Amino acid sequence: MRAGQLAQPYPTVSVDDDALSSARLMATQRAPGLIVCDAQGRPCAVLPGSQVLNFLLPRYIQDDPVLARTFAEQAADDLRSRLVHHTVRELLPPRPDASDLPIVDCDATTIEVAALMARLRSPLVAVVDQDKVIGAITISAILMHFLTP
Amino acid sequence: MRAGQLAQPYPTVSVDDDALSSARLMATQRAPGLIVCDAQGRPCAVLPGSQVLNFLLPRYIQDDPVLARTFAEQAADDLRSRLVHHTVRELLPPRPDASDLPIVDCDATTIEVAALMARLRSPLVAVVDQDKVIGAITISAILMHFLTP
Repeated sequence: MRAGQLAQPYPTVSVDDDALSSARLMATQRAPGLIVCDAQGRPCAVLPGSQVLNFLLPRYIQDDPVLARTFAEQAADDLRSRLVHHTVRELLPPRPDASDLPIVDCDATTIEVAALMARLRSPLVAVVDQDKVIGAITISAILMHFLTP
Repeated sequence: MRAGQLAQPYPTVSVDDDALSSARLMATQRAPGLIVCDAQGRPCAVLPGSQVLNFLLPRYIQDDPVLARTFAEQAADDLRSRLVHHTVRELLPPRPDASDLPIVDCDATTIEVAALMARLRSPLVAVVDQDKVIGAITISAILMHFLTP
Protein backbone atom coordinates (compact mmCIF):
# COMPACT_ATOMS: atom_id res chain seq x y z
CA MET A 1 0.00 0.00 0.00
CA ARG A 2 1.34 3.40 -1.02
CA ALA A 3 0.37 6.90 0.09
CA GLY A 4 -1.42 7.58 -3.19
CA GLN A 5 -3.82 4.70 -2.50
CA LEU A 6 -4.69 5.90 1.02
CA ALA A 7 -5.12 9.57 0.09
CA GLN A 8 -8.61 11.05 0.27
CA PRO A 9 -9.84 14.32 -1.26
CA TYR A 10 -8.99 17.18 1.05
CA PRO A 11 -9.57 20.96 1.02
CA THR A 12 -6.66 23.10 -0.16
CA VAL A 13 -6.24 26.87 -0.14
CA SER A 14 -3.71 29.19 -1.70
CA VAL A 15 -1.30 31.41 0.25
CA ASP A 16 -3.07 34.38 -1.39
CA ASP A 17 -6.59 33.31 -0.40
CA ASP A 18 -8.59 35.35 2.08
CA ALA A 19 -7.84 34.36 5.69
CA LEU A 20 -11.42 34.62 6.95
CA SER A 21 -12.98 32.44 4.22
CA SER A 22 -10.17 29.90 4.60
CA ALA A 23 -10.71 29.67 8.36
CA ARG A 24 -14.45 29.27 7.74
CA LEU A 25 -13.71 26.48 5.23
CA MET A 26 -11.68 24.70 7.91
CA ALA A 27 -14.58 25.04 10.36
CA THR A 28 -17.35 23.93 8.02
CA GLN A 29 -15.35 20.97 6.65
CA ARG A 30 -14.45 19.95 10.21
CA ALA A 31 -10.87 19.70 9.00
CA PRO A 32 -8.03 19.56 11.53
CA GLY A 33 -6.02 21.76 9.15
CA LEU A 34 -5.84 22.97 5.57
CA ILE A 35 -3.28 22.17 2.91
CA VAL A 36 -1.79 25.44 1.67
CA CYS A 37 -0.44 25.73 -1.88
CA ASP A 38 1.87 28.39 -3.29
CA ALA A 39 1.03 30.54 -6.31
CA GLN A 40 2.18 27.71 -8.60
CA GLY A 41 -0.21 25.24 -6.95
CA ARG A 42 2.54 23.32 -5.11
CA PRO A 43 1.81 22.50 -1.47
CA CYS A 44 4.00 24.58 0.83
CA ALA A 45 2.43 24.17 4.28
CA VAL A 46 -0.30 22.64 6.38
CA LEU A 47 -2.17 25.25 8.39
CA PRO A 48 -3.47 23.74 11.63
CA GLY A 49 -6.58 25.13 13.28
CA SER A 50 -4.59 26.02 16.38
CA GLN A 51 -2.51 28.40 14.27
CA VAL A 52 -5.67 30.25 13.21
CA LEU A 53 -6.62 30.64 16.88
CA ASN A 54 -3.07 31.76 17.55
CA PHE A 55 -3.55 34.57 15.00
CA LEU A 56 -7.04 35.44 16.26
CA LEU A 57 -6.20 35.78 19.92
CA PRO A 58 -3.95 38.54 21.22
CA ARG A 59 -0.78 37.08 22.76
CA TYR A 60 -1.55 38.43 26.27
CA ILE A 61 -4.80 36.44 26.31
CA GLN A 62 -3.05 33.23 25.32
CA ASP A 63 -0.41 33.65 27.97
CA ASP A 64 -2.64 34.51 30.91
CA PRO A 65 -5.64 32.28 31.78
CA VAL A 66 -6.98 34.96 34.14
CA LEU A 67 -7.09 37.55 31.37
CA ALA A 68 -8.69 35.01 29.04
CA ARG A 69 -11.41 34.45 31.63
CA THR A 70 -12.24 38.12 31.98
CA PHE A 71 -12.09 38.90 28.26
CA ALA A 72 -15.65 39.81 27.35
CA GLU A 73 -17.50 37.30 25.24
CA GLN A 74 -18.82 40.19 23.10
CA ALA A 75 -15.26 40.82 21.96
CA ALA A 76 -15.58 37.72 19.77
CA ASP A 77 -16.78 40.03 16.99
CA ASP A 78 -13.55 41.98 17.30
CA LEU A 79 -11.61 38.73 17.01
CA ARG A 80 -13.32 37.89 13.73
CA SER A 81 -12.33 41.28 12.37
CA ARG A 82 -8.69 40.38 12.99
CA LEU A 83 -8.92 38.00 10.01
CA VAL A 84 -10.42 40.52 7.61
CA HIS A 85 -8.04 41.90 4.98
CA HIS A 86 -5.46 39.24 5.72
CA THR A 87 -4.31 36.36 3.57
CA VAL A 88 -3.53 32.76 4.44
CA ARG A 89 0.17 33.60 4.04
CA GLU A 90 -0.04 35.85 7.10
CA LEU A 91 -1.56 33.05 9.21
CA LEU A 92 1.28 30.64 8.54
CA PRO A 93 3.98 30.10 11.14
CA PRO A 94 7.56 30.98 10.12
CA ARG A 95 8.60 28.81 7.19
CA PRO A 96 9.95 25.49 8.44
CA ASP A 97 12.60 23.32 6.80
CA ALA A 98 11.30 21.24 3.92
CA SER A 99 11.88 18.11 6.05
CA ASP A 100 9.44 19.50 8.62
CA LEU A 101 6.52 19.74 6.20
CA PRO A 102 3.79 17.09 6.42
CA ILE A 103 3.95 16.37 2.69
CA VAL A 104 4.75 13.03 1.04
CA ASP A 105 5.05 11.73 -2.48
CA CYS A 106 2.29 9.38 -3.67
CA ASP A 107 4.91 6.59 -3.80
CA ALA A 108 5.73 6.89 -0.07
CA THR A 109 5.10 3.77 1.99
CA THR A 110 2.54 3.85 4.77
CA ILE A 111 5.41 3.43 7.25
CA GLU A 112 6.99 6.62 5.91
CA VAL A 113 3.67 8.44 6.26
CA ALA A 114 3.23 7.23 9.84
CA ALA A 115 6.82 8.11 10.78
CA LEU A 116 6.38 11.63 9.43
CA MET A 117 3.09 12.11 11.33
CA ALA A 118 4.65 10.85 14.55
CA ARG A 119 7.75 13.04 14.21
CA LEU A 120 5.85 16.21 13.29
CA ARG A 121 2.85 15.40 15.54
CA SER A 122 0.71 16.21 12.55
CA PRO A 123 -2.92 15.06 12.28
CA LEU A 124 -2.62 14.85 8.49
CA VAL A 125 -0.15 14.71 5.61
CA ALA A 126 -0.67 16.02 2.10
CA VAL A 127 0.02 13.57 -0.73
CA VAL A 128 1.51 14.93 -3.95
CA ASP A 129 2.02 13.56 -7.43
CA GLN A 130 4.33 15.62 -9.65
CA ASP A 131 4.06 18.61 -7.32
CA LYS A 132 0.23 18.59 -7.39
CA VAL A 133 -1.83 17.72 -4.32
CA ILE A 134 -3.94 14.62 -4.91
CA GLY A 135 -5.38 14.47 -1.38
CA ALA A 136 -4.45 13.88 2.22
CA ILE A 137 -4.06 11.05 4.71
CA THR A 138 -5.47 11.67 8.18
CA ILE A 139 -4.20 10.01 11.29
CA SER A 140 -7.48 8.06 11.55
CA ALA A 141 -6.87 6.60 8.09
CA ILE A 142 -3.32 5.53 8.86
CA LEU A 143 -4.38 3.98 12.19
CA MET A 144 -7.18 2.11 10.40
CA HIS A 145 -4.62 0.82 7.93
CA PHE A 146 -2.26 -0.49 10.61
CA LEU A 147 -4.73 -1.65 13.24
CA THR A 148 -7.43 -3.47 11.32
CA PRO A 149 -6.46 -7.01 10.35
CA MET B 1 -21.76 31.05 25.52
CA ARG B 2 -19.94 28.71 27.89
CA ALA B 3 -17.88 25.58 27.27
CA GLY B 4 -20.66 23.34 28.55
CA GLN B 5 -22.98 24.60 25.79
CA LEU B 6 -20.46 23.97 23.00
CA ALA B 7 -19.39 20.53 24.22
CA GLN B 8 -20.34 17.54 22.09
CA PRO B 9 -20.31 13.85 23.12
CA TYR B 10 -16.80 12.47 22.68
CA PRO B 11 -15.18 9.06 23.19
CA THR B 12 -13.32 8.55 26.47
CA VAL B 13 -11.11 5.66 27.58
CA SER B 14 -9.59 4.72 30.91
CA VAL B 15 -5.86 4.60 31.64
CA ASP B 16 -6.34 0.89 32.29
CA ASP B 17 -8.09 0.13 29.00
CA ASP B 18 -6.43 -2.01 26.38
CA ALA B 19 -4.13 0.02 24.11
CA LEU B 20 -5.05 -1.79 20.88
CA SER B 21 -8.83 -1.43 21.26
CA SER B 22 -8.43 2.21 22.29
CA ALA B 23 -6.32 2.98 19.23
CA ARG B 24 -8.93 1.21 17.08
CA LEU B 25 -11.67 3.30 18.69
CA MET B 26 -9.75 6.44 17.75
CA ALA B 27 -9.47 5.21 14.17
CA THR B 28 -13.08 4.14 13.70
CA GLN B 29 -14.47 7.29 15.34
CA ARG B 30 -12.15 9.42 13.19
CA ALA B 31 -11.20 11.21 16.38
CA PRO B 32 -8.07 13.39 16.45
CA GLY B 33 -7.46 12.10 19.98
CA LEU B 34 -9.11 10.38 22.92
CA ILE B 35 -9.96 11.77 26.33
CA VAL B 36 -8.29 9.58 28.95
CA CYS B 37 -9.78 9.24 32.43
CA ASP B 38 -8.13 7.93 35.59
CA ALA B 39 -9.45 5.04 37.67
CA GLN B 40 -11.86 7.46 39.40
CA GLY B 41 -13.32 8.61 36.06
CA ARG B 42 -11.63 12.04 36.15
CA PRO B 43 -10.00 13.17 32.90
CA CYS B 44 -6.23 13.12 33.22
CA ALA B 45 -4.97 13.42 29.63
CA VAL B 46 -5.81 13.73 25.96
CA LEU B 47 -4.11 11.07 23.89
CA PRO B 48 -3.41 12.38 20.37
CA GLY B 49 -3.23 9.98 17.45
CA SER B 50 0.35 11.00 16.77
CA GLN B 51 1.31 9.66 20.20
CA VAL B 52 -0.12 6.24 19.27
CA LEU B 53 2.04 6.27 16.13
CA ASN B 54 4.96 7.35 18.29
CA PHE B 55 4.47 4.22 20.41
CA LEU B 56 3.90 1.95 17.39
CA LEU B 57 6.98 2.95 15.42
CA PRO B 58 10.46 2.15 16.65
CA ARG B 59 12.41 5.35 17.33
CA TYR B 60 15.05 4.64 14.65
CA ILE B 61 12.33 4.60 11.98
CA GLN B 62 10.91 7.93 13.12
CA ASP B 63 14.31 9.57 13.10
CA ASP B 64 15.54 8.36 9.73
CA PRO B 65 13.37 8.82 6.61
CA VAL B 66 15.63 6.45 4.65
CA LEU B 67 15.06 3.64 7.14
CA ALA B 68 11.34 4.38 7.15
CA ARG B 69 11.33 4.01 3.36
CA THR B 70 13.07 0.64 3.42
CA PHE B 71 11.05 -0.78 6.32
CA ALA B 72 9.07 -3.60 4.78
CA GLU B 73 5.37 -2.99 4.46
CA GLN B 74 4.75 -6.54 5.76
CA ALA B 75 6.18 -5.46 9.08
CA ALA B 76 2.91 -3.58 9.71
CA ASP B 77 1.66 -6.75 11.41
CA ASP B 78 4.58 -6.56 13.81
CA LEU B 79 3.72 -2.95 14.54
CA ARG B 80 0.19 -3.89 15.53
CA SER B 81 1.57 -6.47 17.94
CA ARG B 82 3.44 -3.68 19.73
CA LEU B 83 0.09 -2.53 21.15
CA VAL B 84 -0.97 -5.97 22.41
CA HIS B 85 -0.74 -6.46 26.19
CA HIS B 86 -0.29 -2.75 26.78
CA THR B 87 -2.64 -0.28 28.41
CA VAL B 88 -3.54 3.29 27.49
CA ARG B 89 -1.40 4.43 30.45
CA GLU B 90 1.72 3.18 28.64
CA LEU B 91 0.87 5.17 25.49
CA LEU B 92 0.67 8.48 27.32
CA PRO B 93 3.54 10.93 27.17
CA PRO B 94 5.21 11.83 30.49
CA ARG B 95 2.68 13.47 32.78
CA PRO B 96 2.47 17.19 32.01
CA ASP B 97 1.67 20.00 34.43
CA ALA B 98 -2.05 20.39 35.15
CA SER B 99 -1.96 23.74 33.30
CA ASP B 100 -0.79 21.92 30.17
CA LEU B 101 -3.82 19.67 29.99
CA PRO B 102 -6.51 20.45 27.40
CA ILE B 103 -9.29 20.28 29.99
CA VAL B 104 -11.71 23.06 30.93
CA ASP B 105 -14.60 23.48 33.33
CA CYS B 106 -18.08 23.69 31.78
CA ASP B 107 -18.25 27.32 32.98
CA ALA B 108 -15.18 28.36 30.96
CA THR B 109 -15.76 31.06 28.35
CA THR B 110 -15.19 30.28 24.70
CA ILE B 111 -12.25 32.71 24.76
CA GLU B 112 -10.65 30.61 27.50
CA VAL B 113 -11.21 27.46 25.45
CA ALA B 114 -9.69 29.05 22.33
CA ALA B 115 -6.71 30.41 24.28
CA LEU B 116 -5.99 26.97 25.74
CA MET B 117 -6.21 25.28 22.32
CA ALA B 118 -3.90 27.89 20.79
CA ARG B 119 -1.36 27.63 23.60
CA LEU B 120 -1.31 23.82 23.71
CA ARG B 121 -1.81 23.43 19.92
CA SER B 122 -4.51 20.95 20.82
CA PRO B 123 -7.21 19.93 18.30
CA LEU B 124 -9.69 19.40 21.15
CA VAL B 125 -10.38 20.16 24.80
CA ALA B 126 -12.31 18.01 27.25
CA VAL B 127 -15.13 19.73 29.14
CA VAL B 128 -15.78 18.66 32.72
CA ASP B 129 -18.56 19.26 35.20
CA GLN B 130 -17.73 18.27 38.79
CA ASP B 131 -14.74 16.20 37.65
CA LYS B 132 -16.83 14.21 35.15
CA VAL B 133 -16.34 14.53 31.40
CA ILE B 134 -19.47 15.84 29.69
CA GLY B 135 -17.95 16.02 26.20
CA ALA B 136 -15.35 17.82 24.15
CA ILE B 137 -14.96 20.90 21.99
CA THR B 138 -13.08 20.47 18.74
CA ILE B 139 -11.19 23.20 16.98
CA SER B 140 -13.79 23.15 14.18
CA ALA B 141 -16.53 23.88 16.69
CA ILE B 142 -14.69 26.79 18.27
CA LEU B 143 -13.85 28.26 14.86
CA MET B 144 -17.50 27.92 13.82
CA HIS B 145 -18.48 29.76 17.00
CA PHE B 146 -16.12 32.68 16.37
CA LEU B 147 -16.28 32.92 12.59
CA THR B 148 -19.94 32.57 11.73
CA PRO B 149 -21.93 35.78 12.23
